[in-house]
Amino acid sequence: MLMLGKTYDNEVCSAARALELVGERWTLLIVRNALFAGCTRYGDFQKRLGIATNILKTRLDGLVAAEIMTFKDGEYLLTERGHDLVPVILALTAWGDRWVADKPPILYKHSTCGGAISQQVACAECGVVDEPSEVIARVGPGMPAGRTTRLS
Amino acid sequence: MLMLGKTYDNEVCSAARALELVGERWTLLIVRNALFAGCTRYGDFQKRLGIATNILKTRLDGLVAAEIMTFKDGEYLLTERGHDLVPVILALTAWGDRWVADKPPILYKHSTCGGAISQQVACAECGVVDEPSEVIARVGPGMPAGRTTRLS
Repeated sequence: MLMLGKTYDNEVCSAARALELVGERWTLLIVRNALFAGCTRYGDFQKRLGIATNILKTRLDGLVAAEIMTFKDGEYLLTERGHDLVPVILALTAWGDRWVADKPPILYKHSTCGGAISQQVACAECGVVDEPSEVIARVGPGMPAGRTTRLS
Repeated sequence: MLMLGKTYDNEVCSAARALELVGERWTLLIVRNALFAGCTRYGDFQKRLGIATNILKTRLDGLVAAEIMTFKDGEYLLTERGHDLVPVILALTAWGDRWVADKPPILYKHSTCGGAISQQVACAECGVVDEPSEVIARVGPGMPAGRTTRLS
């Protein structure tokens, strides 16, 4: 199921595990086009992304192996696991809009009401957290013994 | 300032621009260790990540070139642009916790109150959006003329 193999094996972190599956070049852009541009067929992705055909095939196969997509009747379709990457795309887009783009080329909307969609960091006690430096990491229940490192 | 060059040049999208800067293997894990594990020196990252030294140096240089870090007196320090990657890390972690990890190895907390930090998709009209498939993309003000594609 891994796409990058055990590259990040030293890292006990769900972000690292996520990057093993979606961190290869092009992978998240393929997912983005599946999520938001209606791409389902090999040719759709090829036309939209202008990516070398051998790389595209490898990435699509990897997304199927990672259970982020299924392949049936010539169509690559996102699974629930794939749809659940929306917040990752939103977070990357928000960062790019803020720091790289002049104006946002793409806006995300709520399909049911047309409202503007944003991605927020929330504290269970305080509500929305606007200051990213107020987020800290602590050891969780999935950390193996002896790997508590510099967090805790 | 680009780290991946013009690889994604066909893509008019802030997520693609973001991935040019932070999408290379290891880059986001370096940022994560800077954000949450107190790493500032080359040796800190080396010890934490177990990454080949030539790759680590290239990635750190790239982060400085992308203005995500500064390098001064032997220390790599995140800029505001770098701290602003927290939501990207949180989104990747949440996805990994849900789909790859058994239990979360790392928990994010609010430094001021200790509350649990999570990352949410919000609609300006409706509040929190729990269903990722309700997020759609529309053309924004930064989309060049003639590039409206399949988004409407």
